[in-house]
Amino acid sequence: MKFTTERTAFLKSLGHVQSIVEKRGTIPILSNVRLEAKGEGLSLNATDMDIEIEEFCPAGVIQPGATTAPAHTLFEIVRKLPDGAQVEVSFDGDESQILLRAGRSRFRLACLPVSEFPIMNPGEFSHTFAIPASDLRGLIDRTRQAISNEETRYYLNGIFLHAADSGGVPVLRAVATDGHRLACADVPLPQGAAGMPGIILPKKTVGELRKLSDETGMDISIAVSEQKIRFTFDDISLVSKLIDGKFPDYERVIPRNNDKMLQIDRQSFSQAVDRVSAISSERSKAVKMALGKDQISLSANSPDAGSAQEDVSAEYDSQAFEIGFNARYLTDILDHLQGETVQISLSDGAAPTVIRDTADASALYVLMPMRV
Amino acid sequence: MKFTTERTAFLKSLGHVQSIVEKRGTIPILSNVRLEAKGEGLSLNATDMDIEIEEFCPAGVIQPGATTAPAHTLFEIVRKLPDGAQVEVSFDGDESQILLRAGRSRFRLACLPVSEFPIMNPGEFSHTFAIPASDLRGLIDRTRQAISNEETRYYLNGIFLHAADSGGVPVLRAVATDGHRLACADVPLPQGAAGMPGIILPKKTVGELRKLSDETGMDISIAVSEQKIRFTFDDISLVSKLIDGKFPDYERVIPRNNDKMLQIDRQSFSQAVDRVSAISSERSKAVKMALGKDQISLSANSPDAGSAQEDVSAEYDSQAFEIGFNARYLTDILDHLQGETVQISLSDGAAPTVIRDTADASALYVLMPMRV
Repeated sequence: MKFTTERTAFLKSLGHVQSIVEKRGTIPILSNVRLEAKGEGLSLNATDMDIEIEEFCPAGVIQPGATTAPAHTLFEIVRKLPDGAQVEVSFDGDESQILLRAGRSRFRLACLPVSEFPIMNPGEFSHTFAIPASDLRGLIDRTRQAISNEETRYYLNGIFLHAADSGGVPVLRAVATDGHRLACADVPLPQGAAGMPGIILPKKTVGELRKLSDETGMDISIAVSEQKIRFTFDDISLVSKLIDGKFPDYERVIPRNNDKMLQIDRQSFSQAVDRVSAISSERSKAVKMALGKDQISLSANSPDAGSAQEDVSAEYDSQAFEIGFNARYLTDILDHLQGETVQISLSDGAAPTVIRDTADASALYVLMPMRV
Repeated sequence: MKFTTERTAFLKSLGHVQSIVEKRGTIPILSNVRLEAKGEGLSLNATDMDIEIEEFCPAGVIQPGATTAPAHTLFEIVRKLPDGAQVEVSFDGDESQILLRAGRSRFRLACLPVSEFPIMNPGEFSHTFAIPASDLRGLIDRTRQAISNEETRYYLNGIFLHAADSGGVPVLRAVATDGHRLACADVPLPQGAAGMPGIILPKKTVGELRKLSDETGMDISIAVSEQKIRFTFDDISLVSKLIDGKFPDYERVIPRNNDKMLQIDRQSFSQAVDRVSAISSERSKAVKMALGKDQISLSANSPDAGSAQEDVSAEYDSQAFEIGFNARYLTDILDHLQGETVQISLSDGAAPTVIRDTADASALYVLMPMRV
């Protein structure tokens, strides 16, 4: 194996694939990136046995061949090479070591045989479709904050992606919940996605996909089966296992009959909640909201520190009552929205509350109240 | 007590004083900032019993008085108030609580009696002098990286500041060492500093002083005794205890007879060391330097990962030999210098090496070799 490539392109590809590699893995081969020089360039693979990434990098192939080398070390070396450097990689004597040369630098890296590198069998995909990258990013950005980190309810450790019906319009819907809050966002259903199985995309896959898709303006091709999903765009192919579990019936959690409507300026509301919560102790961060005619009064109490109170103007014309929220969950939601005003529909102090962006009808958030 | 002040000025002062306050203290009064409204404004005090800061903040005093309130909470609240807000602080009923009002926000904070707040007795100072803020920053920036964190040799946990003689010129000298490296920097001796006691400025004081002095272009007034030091500038007064120990005789550590002179481009040297060290395992980061006629050859080995080698052009005309360094210590020093080239004087592979900035004769660095 022998190839030459340009440092910047190599670094970009290595940056992508090394991100999948576990930092403190115990299986040596999984710390390595698979490099294969053939045809027009270099193919790089990395895997953590749940996610597999393959990326193509343009390179001048002098002698085709394949090996595996330590991913993080290789990335660090290439990162530290000067911008614009030409990199040459070849076997050094036998196939147990590669020699990387750039300018006056020479690195020898221990290799592991390419035959040990596990390649995931993606199996058959039942549905394939293409989605604009901005749509996919929108689904992730509006829901990922609600993903649960609790390992006991593992089926909540991801985003539930499925074809749904929104008032007669077919949509691709993303839902995430940790039991305290729920986020739900829709985009138009791409052609070919009708009838796709409902799948749970693991949190790590969500994070990697979001980073990788940040640079692309193209459509992303998606292929799904009940066990796996594959994303293809630019020179990247990402295959991920899915969470093998049943996502709860989220439709039952979204209240449909909340009749008390509050309309409020998003930024002043968020800032007031943030200020008032400065008083409460770090753990709970509970904030109480007393609704009255065209005004809400926020307050927080801390047995040690004291108390805080702030009034915010709003549009509200229903019965006065009080409700408590986790301040961080509330500001998380408000800060993710785009519109100037939010619409909050409530039922009573013990019932889930629905928050909507007045500028974006395709997303909604459900927040469970806290006892205050 | 009652005063009004402008949020930005109050925030700046609170930011300064809360930085001294320990985050996880066990003595309640030390978590508080002392606020005293009198005359033209507000005086703020904080202490950790080793460092004491006092800062003046302009305020409209409506009723003079003093109290203490939780420093971090107060800082967080004021930070979250909108820019340009007017803040009013007063006792709320009795003196056990203050009421802070700004716009439509109201905060009640539990107070502790001002009589419980410890005020350090600075004692008598034997020497007072003024030093340009840029000189003081220069002394700190060129030496602080070598401060030891090892608690057993507590007398190395700071910067040794003393009046010295540099080739017949009286200087104020800062020295720090952790036993593996030593940094030494001089500025002209300020008037009044002659004969001052040699003092060890604790690491936390160094850090706080560096931050606080960043904004000032004025002279800094310094008063010292054998136990304490006081820095006064702008509206700030910082008093710190000194490390009660004997700094080692650093002059004996600085080699005077190193006769092998190496002159090398600072940036290419530093970048090559950084690259070559990418191969070595995280802990040791040893890099070997083989000196030959007008060239050095850097190399590193890792039993797991492989090896690295890079040649760098240099001016060198003495005997060829090899020496090893801790790569991080070496790049730390090189990256702190300003000049284009560095001058390195060596003796042999087991002896301390001296590094000087060709653009700055007032600082020098001693680096112990590593066995490689």
